Amino acid sequence: MGREKFTVGIDYGTESGRAVVVRVRDGEEMGSAIVPYPDGVIDEKLPGGPRLGHDWALQNPRDYLWVVEKGVPKAMKQARVRAEDVIGIGTDFTASSPLPTRRDGTPLCFLPQYRKQPHAWVKLWKHHAAQAEANRINEIGRERNEEFLRVYGGRYSSEWLFSKLLQIVNEAPEIYEATERFIEAADWIVWQLTGQEKRNACTAGYKAMWIKGQGFPSREFFRSLHPRLENVIEQKLGETYYPLGAKAGGLTAFWARKTGLREGTAVAIGNVDAHVAVPACGVVEPGSLVMIMGTSICHLLLGRERQMVEGMCGTVEDGVVPGLWGYEAGQSAVGDIFAWYFEHGVPNSIHREARRLRIPFTEVLERRARDLAPAQSGLLALDWWNGNRSILVDADLSGLLLGMNLSTRAEEIYRALLEATAFGTRQIIEAFESKGLTVKNLVVCGGLPQKNALLMQIFADVTGREIRLAKRLLTCSALGSAMHAAVAAGRAAGGYDNIFQAAERMAHLRRRVYVPRPEAHQIYNQLFREYQILHDYFGRGTNDVMKRLKALRAGGPDAAVKLP
Amino acid sequence: MGREKFTVGIDYGTESGRAVVVRVRDGEEMGSAIVPYPDGVIDEKLPGGPRLGHDWALQNPRDYLWVVEKGVPKAMKQARVRAEDVIGIGTDFTASSPLPTRRDGTPLCFLPQYRKQPHAWVKLWKHHAAQAEANRINEIGRERNEEFLRVYGGRYSSEWLFSKLLQIVNEAPEIYEATERFIEAADWIVWQLTGQEKRNACTAGYKAMWIKGQGFPSREFFRSLHPRLENVIEQKLGETYYPLGAKAGGLTAFWARKTGLREGTAVAIGNVDAHVAVPACGVVEPGSLVMIMGTSICHLLLGRERQMVEGMCGTVEDGVVPGLWGYEAGQSAVGDIFAWYFEHGVPNSIHREARRLRIPFTEVLERRARDLAPAQSGLLALDWWNGNRSILVDADLSGLLLGMNLSTRAEEIYRALLEATAFGTRQIIEAFESKGLTVKNLVVCGGLPQKNALLMQIFADVTGREIRLAKRLLTCSALGSAMHAAVAAGRAAGGYDNIFQAAERMAHLRRRVYVPRPEAHQIYNQLFREYQILHDYFGRGTNDVMKRLKALRAGGPDAAVKLP
Repeated sequence: MGREKFTVGIDYGTESGRAVVVRVRDGEEMGSAIVPYPDGVIDEKLPGGPRLGHDWALQNPRDYLWVVEKGVPKAMKQARVRAEDVIGIGTDFTASSPLPTRRDGTPLCFLPQYRKQPHAWVKLWKHHAAQAEANRINEIGRERNEEFLRVYGGRYSSEWLFSKLLQIVNEAPEIYEATERFIEAADWIVWQLTGQEKRNACTAGYKAMWIKGQGFPSREFFRSLHPRLENVIEQKLGETYYPLGAKAGGLTAFWARKTGLREGTAVAIGNVDAHVAVPACGVVEPGSLVMIMGTSICHLLLGRERQMVEGMCGTVEDGVVPGLWGYEAGQSAVGDIFAWYFEHGVPNSIHREARRLRIPFTEVLERRARDLAPAQSGLLALDWWNGNRSILVDADLSGLLLGMNLSTRAEEIYRALLEATAFGTRQIIEAFESKGLTVKNLVVCGGLPQKNALLMQIFADVTGREIRLAKRLLTCSALGSAMHAAVAAGRAAGGYDNIFQAAERMAHLRRRVYVPRPEAHQIYNQLFREYQILHDYFGRGTNDVMKRLKALRAGGPDAAVKLP
Repeated sequence: MGREKFTVGIDYGTESGRAVVVRVRDGEEMGSAIVPYPDGVIDEKLPGGPRLGHDWALQNPRDYLWVVEKGVPKAMKQARVRAEDVIGIGTDFTASSPLPTRRDGTPLCFLPQYRKQPHAWVKLWKHHAAQAEANRINEIGRERNEEFLRVYGGRYSSEWLFSKLLQIVNEAPEIYEATERFIEAADWIVWQLTGQEKRNACTAGYKAMWIKGQGFPSREFFRSLHPRLENVIEQKLGETYYPLGAKAGGLTAFWARKTGLREGTAVAIGNVDAHVAVPACGVVEPGSLVMIMGTSICHLLLGRERQMVEGMCGTVEDGVVPGLWGYEAGQSAVGDIFAWYFEHGVPNSIHREARRLRIPFTEVLERRARDLAPAQSGLLALDWWNGNRSILVDADLSGLLLGMNLSTRAEEIYRALLEATAFGTRQIIEAFESKGLTVKNLVVCGGLPQKNALLMQIFADVTGREIRLAKRLLTCSALGSAMHAAVAAGRAAGGYDNIFQAAERMAHLRRRVYVPRPEAHQIYNQLFREYQILHDYFGRGTNDVMKRLKALRAGGPDAAVKLP
């Protein structure tokens, strides 16, 4: 055996980027560094520029370079690893977060003449100002019976690439004309590091209507959207998309100097942050549902064939690992609901008790909620505080809490909210299984599992499935990128032939298993039936009260009347 | 004109009694005194005796005498009125609050041999341990198609006289046998003051199945309930019931000495606390709905004929004023829901703001809620935190809140709760109007109207009706008793011929009128339609999830599973 080899993984999140240095032999994390984006999420005004509209969310691509420049040397230093032993670099990104650039990759927002134009910047995944454009895309897509609608469970999102591009066309045609390349940040950063514009098939498949073996929708479709878009693919996107784990190129001399790594170090094709976590959870076969649990949950499942599962965010061949279909589903708010409750629903009595016991108030809440039995509170909730992503794909739905009486207590409400998110996941599991896609167990990563053991037990009890936790809960995506880097480097260089080998060696789970308790599961089966009845009643059009309330609300302060 | 005349009103509430001295000419309150019951509500253990079961609530009749002995002299002293100018005494009571006595009126609980027997004490209106007996009464009543079920909107309550009596028969037959008279505290206190057992038609009509001109259900009915009950009416209750405002007798020498009033002072027949408030609100004709607003709301409306209105608590001829039908409806939790929210739902941020502004936190909540427009929050609630009294008459229903999202704030939830209680009242109004009983406007008394101007405006906006407040919000019942005392005394003694005259002179409203705002009313019309859809869906059997959750919950800690 020669010297130990290492790879670098860089995970681009919403607020910061994280670099890790990982040992190829066993996935051990040798060093890591978190680098907050200097401009963060730009959602109020451009730096030195105009105010942004409601629902806008931009980023500065310079911050992505900053993460490489600061983060990689710091992680390397911590790892005490020599540059010549680093065989590859992998990256993953939020998606869809596209930006307009010149032909040479220069972002339009770097150019003085466009700096004050919001449309010249990166539109972050959670930029929600292109809803009208998404509606138009869905309308035309339905009229033309486009295949991509089936891939996306019947609805193309305002968060995705073409919604954002169409918004530019509509609102800033001069920016559209100046755009020579329109590219995912995931691919842009790889371009910067290698000098090669090589785009990844994962982001294209999940966010940009690209289908393996078929490519994009036709020119007629794009022309129907907008005449200027007719030739958008050839002119501004490109038609070649590379599989995950492929090598995009070697690290440029410039970035070798900046990072201290060696020129020519293999750089992997870009990836999506959630998807790259799957092999890092050791999952490269069907049967295990991976859940990245944080403010929301992203669910990923592998399947041997393509099935039309209700409410998928996407169903992409080779989209997660080669040779399998990658199914993506999601719950649009999970940790966000608990955080909302902590901020806006926890009464003084809980805070007083926390001060008395000198523990965080969330711990008081969790202890008391843990002492409750399933069904003991008499409460039931629908977890739609941020709409429903899967399986209803409906942003206009809202939350519901039912069963309160005068002796209802805060910990009971809290527990009902935890349970509701578990019911939401079970609904997704049942959608998979109704199409023959088995979910045998759950594997989780993200910030929530470690913080909330009660939540994990409730998920096990509600779903009736064992849950295991990734060893590296918070750096799962970065590890996944480092694994893909090892694949991009290849066995000859000390890496691996494919992601299956990499997963076997580099991915690890914790020992602790959350096992469903049969009696609790049985009671939750009854509560879940109640959840389903409410889910279908409010979510499938029998009573559209949530939508009507939202519409009335949108009439808002002007339409409505305040007290004198 | 001779010297000014005065009457005394005594209002027996749940925690205390209140005596007032009122000027007959104009209803001016000259003096008042509140006397807390020394034993309060006995719901955990008897004084010096055994622990009570769940849902029990008893009182000590000695406390009622204590109110007379302490309260009347104190109010008289404050009023600076001479005893010879006091022409009458009137009383009102919570109902149904019955007690077992000897033939001479001595409560069984005063006798040493029964003192430790809970069934020997007064069963307070909110004693809820006789639900099984109420169920039995309803079952037999339905089988036999008994008229009383129609009077009570289809259901006889566990709070009422025969449920409580049947509980004694079932659980303590020796107490039943020792009971020579079973009597409402409302009638017992009049008996004490006058030496005459003269029972009032109001309590009998609303709580004890008595119907004017028909009397009680048949012996067969009572025998079906329990063989021992066959002759209960003749043996332990009595068949003569006196109209409101009638004179029961003169004050005894004993009580004249105790109170400082003159022997022989006219004592009016007893009354029910809510019902006696109606003429004290100046309402003696159909068209004005009187609402006593506190922890709950009691609604009273007068009608020229009898109609079967859904979910009435009672429909009694002459039950409120002579010659008219008195309809009683109710919401089982109103102020209680707000108090629940204050205690269990208001977050720290509101408390912090209150400390900063040095105002009560409820004021912060109210100010912010006032700044919201109807429908602006996007929230909608069902006000069933303590079940639904009218119009569904179903204690197993529970609360619901719908429309939450991640930006929902505490003041929005608070306002949704206020609105829900107003929708609940509107539902009752629509039930009246669907039977041709017009509700032209609302007149309110009780503790809530003064504390919560926002609530009053919301009630006006939601119902589309003007609201006026009684001048004496908190002493409305005591004033009503004093008015009936003036009628019992009669015109010759310086009182009045009837309650109509008394109301014209003695009852007053405040100047302020809450006027519905047309734009707000229009938006609330839309929200109310949504409320009705949910009301019927959850309340009329389409989805009995609330009942099923309650049943699962009752399986409770034993049936369910706690975390290890």
